[in-house]
Amino acid sequence: MTQPRQQFASDNYAGICPEAMAAIAQANSGSAPAYGEDVWTLAGANALRELFGTNCDVYFAFNGTAANSLALAALCQSYHSVICSGLAHVETDECGAPEFFSNGSKLMVAESPDGKLTPEAVRDLATSRSDIHFPKPRVVTITQPTESGLVYSVAEIEALSAICRELGLKLHMDGARFAHACAALQCDPADISWRAGVDVLCFGGTKNGMAVSEAVVFFDRDLAQDFDYRCKQAGQLASKMRFLAAPWSGVLESGAWLSNAAHGNRCAQRLAHAIADCTDLHLIFPVESNAVFVSAPQPVLDGIRERGWRFYTFIGNGARFMFAWDADPQQVDLLAADIRAAACQQGEAIPA
Amino acid sequence: MTQPRQQFASDNYAGICPEAMAAIAQANSGSAPAYGEDVWTLAGANALRELFGTNCDVYFAFNGTAANSLALAALCQSYHSVICSGLAHVETDECGAPEFFSNGSKLMVAESPDGKLTPEAVRDLATSRSDIHFPKPRVVTITQPTESGLVYSVAEIEALSAICRELGLKLHMDGARFAHACAALQCDPADISWRAGVDVLCFGGTKNGMAVSEAVVFFDRDLAQDFDYRCKQAGQLASKMRFLAAPWSGVLESGAWLSNAAHGNRCAQRLAHAIADCTDLHLIFPVESNAVFVSAPQPVLDGIRERGWRFYTFIGNGARFMFAWDADPQQVDLLAADIRAAACQQGEAIPA
Amino acid sequence: MTQPRQQFASDNYAGICPEAMAAIAQANSGSAPAYGEDVWTLAGANALRELFGTNCDVYFAFNGTAANSLALAALCQSYHSVICSGLAHVETDECGAPEFFSNGSKLMVAESPDGKLTPEAVRDLATSRSDIHFPKPRVVTITQPTESGLVYSVAEIEALSAICRELGLKLHMDGARFAHACAALQCDPADISWRAGVDVLCFGGTKNGMAVSEAVVFFDRDLAQDFDYRCKQAGQLASKMRFLAAPWSGVLESGAWLSNAAHGNRCAQRLAHAIADCTDLHLIFPVESNAVFVSAPQPVLDGIRERGWRFYTFIGNGARFMFAWDADPQQVDLLAADIRAAACQQGEAIPA
Amino acid sequence: MTQPRQQFASDNYAGICPEAMAAIAQANSGSAPAYGEDVWTLAGANALRELFGTNCDVYFAFNGTAANSLALAALCQSYHSVICSGLAHVETDECGAPEFFSNGSKLMVAESPDGKLTPEAVRDLATSRSDIHFPKPRVVTITQPTESGLVYSVAEIEALSAICRELGLKLHMDGARFAHACAALQCDPADISWRAGVDVLCFGGTKNGMAVSEAVVFFDRDLAQDFDYRCKQAGQLASKMRFLAAPWSGVLESGAWLSNAAHGNRCAQRLAHAIADCTDLHLIFPVESNAVFVSAPQPVLDGIRERGWRFYTFIGNGARFMFAWDADPQQVDLLAADIRAAACQQGEAIPA
Repeated sequence: MTQPRQQFASDNYAGICPEAMAAIAQANSGSAPAYGEDVWTLAGANALRELFGTNCDVYFAFNGTAANSLALAALCQSYHSVICSGLAHVETDECGAPEFFSNGSKLMVAESPDGKLTPEAVRDLATSRSDIHFPKPRVVTITQPTESGLVYSVAEIEALSAICRELGLKLHMDGARFAHACAALQCDPADISWRAGVDVLCFGGTKNGMAVSEAVVFFDRDLAQDFDYRCKQAGQLASKMRFLAAPWSGVLESGAWLSNAAHGNRCAQRLAHAIADCTDLHLIFPVESNAVFVSAPQPVLDGIRERGWRFYTFIGNGARFMFAWDADPQQVDLLAADIRAAACQQGEAIPA
Repeated sequence: MTQPRQQFASDNYAGICPEAMAAIAQANSGSAPAYGEDVWTLAGANALRELFGTNCDVYFAFNGTAANSLALAALCQSYHSVICSGLAHVETDECGAPEFFSNGSKLMVAESPDGKLTPEAVRDLATSRSDIHFPKPRVVTITQPTESGLVYSVAEIEALSAICRELGLKLHMDGARFAHACAALQCDPADISWRAGVDVLCFGGTKNGMAVSEAVVFFDRDLAQDFDYRCKQAGQLASKMRFLAAPWSGVLESGAWLSNAAHGNRCAQRLAHAIADCTDLHLIFPVESNAVFVSAPQPVLDGIRERGWRFYTFIGNGARFMFAWDADPQQVDLLAADIRAAACQQGEAIPA
Repeated sequence: MTQPRQQFASDNYAGICPEAMAAIAQANSGSAPAYGEDVWTLAGANALRELFGTNCDVYFAFNGTAANSLALAALCQSYHSVICSGLAHVETDECGAPEFFSNGSKLMVAESPDGKLTPEAVRDLATSRSDIHFPKPRVVTITQPTESGLVYSVAEIEALSAICRELGLKLHMDGARFAHACAALQCDPADISWRAGVDVLCFGGTKNGMAVSEAVVFFDRDLAQDFDYRCKQAGQLASKMRFLAAPWSGVLESGAWLSNAAHGNRCAQRLAHAIADCTDLHLIFPVESNAVFVSAPQPVLDGIRERGWRFYTFIGNGARFMFAWDADPQQVDLLAADIRAAACQQGEAIPA
Repeated sequence: MTQPRQQFASDNYAGICPEAMAAIAQANSGSAPAYGEDVWTLAGANALRELFGTNCDVYFAFNGTAANSLALAALCQSYHSVICSGLAHVETDECGAPEFFSNGSKLMVAESPDGKLTPEAVRDLATSRSDIHFPKPRVVTITQPTESGLVYSVAEIEALSAICRELGLKLHMDGARFAHACAALQCDPADISWRAGVDVLCFGGTKNGMAVSEAVVFFDRDLAQDFDYRCKQAGQLASKMRFLAAPWSGVLESGAWLSNAAHGNRCAQRLAHAIADCTDLHLIFPVESNAVFVSAPQPVLDGIRERGWRFYTFIGNGARFMFAWDADPQQVDLLAADIRAAACQQGEAIPA
């Protein structure tokens, strides 16, 4: 048994990618005005505006929970509600942060077996009540790719934004792994954001190779009114903002943002293919981005753990593996071999 | 007229000090568990425990506003109040963050002409009312050094903590520049924190040479109950926590935390001495840490600005200059010369 | 077709019962200290203490949403969660008030098809996660009787409180119609509250015949710490408190609290019996308190409405009828006749 | 020594005036739709619209703290600030309610020695800072009459609303005793509200003779958007709304609203005149409404208390007396006599 050198429990296990690190080092030259009044912050925001090809408003926050919660709070009053999937990070893994930042905006879970919202599910929930005892629907939030690793197509997002417009709702995108969706779809980032009707995007830097940075991108700039005050009050205004902003220039100008994501996606495919023929193992969701969800009997999961691998479990007997910019293909192969071995040992899989 | 290479408007203008940067680079080796379950986070916390010589609870937050607000929220219910100086950063420069994080705990300003709280002022305010229409006093917060650059002595802190214990109040210290106080007093950090009765310290990393990190140090560990949940919900749990924690090991083990601060303090003295003989200029507060507050007629302030210097104004005709770890003594001298020249030109000062 | 004189859409449609009105008139004699420092408030609280036979802490709030939300906020920090049924009023009909008052405590819906929580469902949800990304379970809230009109037995409440104690959770009871449960069970109020392990009860006065008053009863008095401050800050401290408190003396000392509830319960039985033999109509839930939920085809529901009756719909083709202290049995009979007629007309029921 | 039958510590000590009580009794006829969908609520709102002669939006809340806080929360985002006098009830006596309801909007105290704001003080504070570290000024709130019993003239309110419009601020009026101002000025209510530029008025019913009711009147109806949701979520939507609304019809249609207030004002004058010639006693503020603030040496205050009178102290050696609709002139004379006697006994006053 080989001790793994690298774990795939989370794409947050990865460090800082070279391009982001170089940008930090470069920005660390001498003094610069604080609180975002510096050239690096302007450059980082401009790099994002160029990427999207539109004059969006850009703010940098420290982490994804804060970025999402601040964006939703900007869209909502406390008596509003946010429609999401039951697998949405905002619902399952932010410890009530959206409710905290908004002072009570309620998340309402729409029907969504695989983590993708549909126009029908949004309509059903948003129109189910219209009395003041029920928080007024105001925002639909989707995660691209979803927490289940699925990627919304351009048409799917357009259909969701159409229902939003019809019902007077805003469309927020949690893009913690937005780059992975772009890599998967090989599309222009604008096509799955503002051109498809997304009002606000939280574009994840951390899972894309940065240390500490998420970009909140307002395509509907009216919605960004006073967002700087909101960030300040909520403890999300970095005094040395240049170190959150410069890495965006680093990864966008070098193309690393996309190659990092594409690498993660490929590693997920690599694992999926390597275990595809195992009887009694199956993929819970199609592998469309950098996540692999493997369903296996408990003894198999135990066997994988015994071989030294860490992973989160998911809906009963599922194991989640995530691949970041730094995933080592040889380690992916090692993981695949250990999964196969665990399955085989239990008589639950026949190694190729 | 020489164009300044470096500004002294804020000690947030400085970049990352070499020791912090080296620590980031070192921590950026391979993958590591997320959300603080890694060896770097443990090491950073341990370095702080060693510095203070006590088994305190340590958490890392992204910035000072969040650190202070989270600490106060942990001490308060929404109907409690926090006693502070009218110059306190929590009162003047956090855009209502303490009220936001605590959902309404009111800051109450005690008498404090120079930014230092006194036991008498605390007692007067805390005992002024005891009815339920007035938020119940619960915490006293002091800034060490104060926003006016003054340093509380050990005895002063002990006197404040005594009145706190007597009145059932907790003592919080905003130590955004805590290192500068240690350097100024040349004392053991424990002497102006837990040994003097401080319950919770927010120890500033950013102003001490880091990119993005503040340590919330609970000396009364009971007060830290569920603080990890609180950080998570408030968007202050870094997924790649190692990059917030490792710099603490870097600056503490190398001694840079103290030498950085001492350097800033010395530069403040350097400026103060260089302009000491100027008629019509005077120091608003004694220079005890890394800040210099110069009072001057408006034409003099204008003259300084015309020579290219940026600074914040303060209580009318005051200019604040702050010196960070990277302050260049030659630039300090240049600033002094320009201040003198501006004063002289107005016939308001006689150059030496 | 007879135009109904009285509607049964809600037991909030009723006015003030004679005993409550008399108490208001009696308390309206001369001046009295404000904010609950008066003899009427003391008497009202004492009447509740006597009813429960224990030295509980009693506070009066204006309405049920506030009473529930304040009680939950007293039990929770913002990062805690509250386990409830999917039919719970706090979840479905308070417009996010619990999240608002607690600044973000998340409601988590446990499995509960009929609105009653079970120990198993509580355990499953409370133990499903233990990481800091998931709000920490802190309270179980049950409604007695449930929003579906069911009544928890003493044993059922004891079983729930046992699981709460085992898991370190507090047990809150939304007793908007607590009197109706007492009337249904013919039990000592203590038996379904503190003796069964309930920590805090929100005892509804409004649905029991008052204008504006709910009692928040802390059986665990430690949990009531500073609750007066909490009420004040949240806009729930009446200056003329006597008019909220005196009606409690009025209905408790006269026995009206119980006879009012028993009357409502009897009217519900009266309706249920009168339509029991209708084919194609059925009761969605057993009639155990003052609510009747009738499932009927849409044309039947339309027919009932056409006959002048107002009602809320519930889970598709269900109609809810609620009976208050003032329900007129002749009007109940008229409603029954109209339901039968509507059903008959559609060929969906055969009148007796 | 005669034991007082009536106290004048607060105008909340009074009960329900006959006209309000009659309205409650009248509204208590049979069943009525809940949550304000009834004829009594419409009539109460219409009576207010008629009083003001404009089509304002009207909501009824339970108490003044809630009414003020909800109105301010409707005007503010959490990062906004509210400019008020240091004597304002929202600042001194609401236990942080405005901050709680708004989730952090900071109250900022402008210079105002006597409790009245001035355009200059508003301008100075509102323009003192414009950076994001300082909560953005958004609302000016004035109390009419002030907590010190002074009455803003029409011209004073117009001047304040002019500066508000100039600076982009909204003008909120805490009219807990609005009727007393109307009685004092003998003006049309519109003249000191919407015609003078007030955007939102909280019109106090409780201090005008009701049990539990305050009207939130939006003259700028755009500001009332979704205010019904806000009330609901904040626990301020009465299910039996008719009992909050009908008293407004009762006091407005009968004229009691104004005669009640005029009576209180006259009683204040009566007391003031009766002690006017006492040496060493003086009025802290001119008596313009229903409050009298008497400054006296401590032994005199003690003597008044020893004679059985209750009162709140105010700024050191001040005693506040308030007169409600039910103040008995003979009791006022008795109070005056006891004050004179207490002063005389101490050799501090010479009875006439």
